[in-house]
Amino acid sequence: MTQVYDKVALIGLGLIAGSMAHAMREGGLAGRITGYARSAETRDTARQIALCEVCDSAAEAVAGADLVVLAVPVGAMADVMTQITPHLAPGVTITDVGSVKQSVIDAVTPHLPAGAHFIPGHPLAGTEHSGPRAGFASLFRNRWWLLTPLPDTDPDALARLDRLITAMGAKTDRMDAAHHDLVLAVTSHAPHLIAYTMVGVADHLRRVSGEEVIQYSAAGFRDFTRIAASDPTMWRDVFLHNKEATLDILGRFTEELFVLQRAIRMGDGQQLHDYFTRTRAIRRGIIEAGQDTEAPDFGRTPGARPAG
Amino acid sequence: MTQVYDKVALIGLGLIAGSMAHAMREGGLAGRITGYARSAETRDTARQIALCEVCDSAAEAVAGADLVVLAVPVGAMADVMTQITPHLAPGVTITDVGSVKQSVIDAVTPHLPAGAHFIPGHPLAGTEHSGPRAGFASLFRNRWWLLTPLPDTDPDALARLDRLITAMGAKTDRMDAAHHDLVLAVTSHAPHLIAYTMVGVADHLRRVSGEEVIQYSAAGFRDFTRIAASDPTMWRDVFLHNKEATLDILGRFTEELFVLQRAIRMGDGQQLHDYFTRTRAIRRGIIEAGQDTEAPDFGRTPGARPAG
Repeated sequence: MTQVYDKVALIGLGLIAGSMAHAMREGGLAGRITGYARSAETRDTARQIALCEVCDSAAEAVAGADLVVLAVPVGAMADVMTQITPHLAPGVTITDVGSVKQSVIDAVTPHLPAGAHFIPGHPLAGTEHSGPRAGFASLFRNRWWLLTPLPDTDPDALARLDRLITAMGAKTDRMDAAHHDLVLAVTSHAPHLIAYTMVGVADHLRRVSGEEVIQYSAAGFRDFTRIAASDPTMWRDVFLHNKEATLDILGRFTEELFVLQRAIRMGDGQQLHDYFTRTRAIRRGIIEAGQDTEAPDFGRTPGARPAG
Repeated sequence: MTQVYDKVALIGLGLIAGSMAHAMREGGLAGRITGYARSAETRDTARQIALCEVCDSAAEAVAGADLVVLAVPVGAMADVMTQITPHLAPGVTITDVGSVKQSVIDAVTPHLPAGAHFIPGHPLAGTEHSGPRAGFASLFRNRWWLLTPLPDTDPDALARLDRLITAMGAKTDRMDAAHHDLVLAVTSHAPHLIAYTMVGVADHLRRVSGEEVIQYSAAGFRDFTRIAASDPTMWRDVFLHNKEATLDILGRFTEELFVLQRAIRMGDGQQLHDYFTRTRAIRRGIIEAGQDTEAPDFGRTPGARPAG
């Protein structure tokens, strides 16, 4: 691997930025890696694990950087830009890793200095864990990293960022920001809200004790709890900033759910069976596309115990 | 391990019965294991892999058995009982592995000959795969196997069945059938219907091409597709036979979803953040109860490719 940037500044030091730091160091892709997080505790943790050169301000982190990565919740992008704009180097490339693209573009572009290249991005990678200790170098391996470049994006800056991303093991694709936000509302945002909701229902249910819900969770529910264990701040911002697409998909979801509920109530077994047969085929497509493991139950160890 | 039953008859040769055959043979728990499935293709497959002594009728399979396991979809239990009742040995124990208990009790008990012991059961174990080839000996290891014995159940017959189940590696618990059906509506039945629904929405969505939904599924949606790949016949029957509890939980789910949808629409970030923080704690409880792995993303291999 050859170095792609001289100095990469990571703003926000969570799972994604942390994994980037590991992957860039492993591949020798950046001359220097600096980082900043708003929370002093996060900065201390990042220092303890020697994640990167941790700075005490975003301004210090970005000074002289030829790549700045905005790895904060999407609601915090505008605020970060006001902190860093006066300190950006000429010709800098700025990218972000937010799960919503149109609202990040709206938040960032008004702050861009002349000559800076902003290329919005979104790695489709993550786990239910968060924070600087959650990162690992192989997070992006064989995963998609979507870029939603603006019409006037500089081709050389785009090609260089693409080189960094593919060198970290990811596959890149490009699409329009609005289209990205709709696709992700289907594949990620609505499923997350639904999982949060179902876990909330279980939590509230007074007739069933909490212990039983947890004890007997292995029958499907526990998969929802994994998704519903994701970072609350990140997800609050996703829903508030991809409001229209998420509400659109949730509306379709509720209609569809009512159709199936009615089939249950009316005892229409044929309708249920037909529906469940169609959905089964989609799983096959995902496995064939290399997007998930075919191993039963995700290859989960039977009766796995906590590691610690 | 010592032999618990002289002859075990498996009616239905899917994932659960197949796994029982492997586990019982591995542990030397049964003198003989016979089996029957309605489909000739399933019987042929079971013979090819030497799963057990495959019979061409349920009557033949149960003749002389001291344990009969009903491992068919819950809607097929009554029909199976009419086939086997005249051929049951005196003092036989009958159990089932259905995901719903009250309706199985209602279906089975009218057919029971005098002196037969019926002990309804439900192993909380499974994968998204089905059929005789899907079984494996360790499926039940460290998993719960719920029993819902009737008030007049013979204690010796119950203790013997319990011995078989724990020898296959499972942990047993006992509860009332109606309570079982409500707990499972929360932890399994409602989550499955919701997953089926979300996958159906993605399938219908015309503005987003199928390829993109599949290509970019790694962001949460693919977990739903695993659940929604479960056996359509089994699940049709679960919903039709646990109708009231499932509709109750789905009603609560919809109410809760509307509350969160409204918070998104009104931009109430605090409400969303509070909700997501509470649901995160439930995940912690499940991991501490040993019901799931703590490994990020279920320990799924990054970018796993199909094995075949």
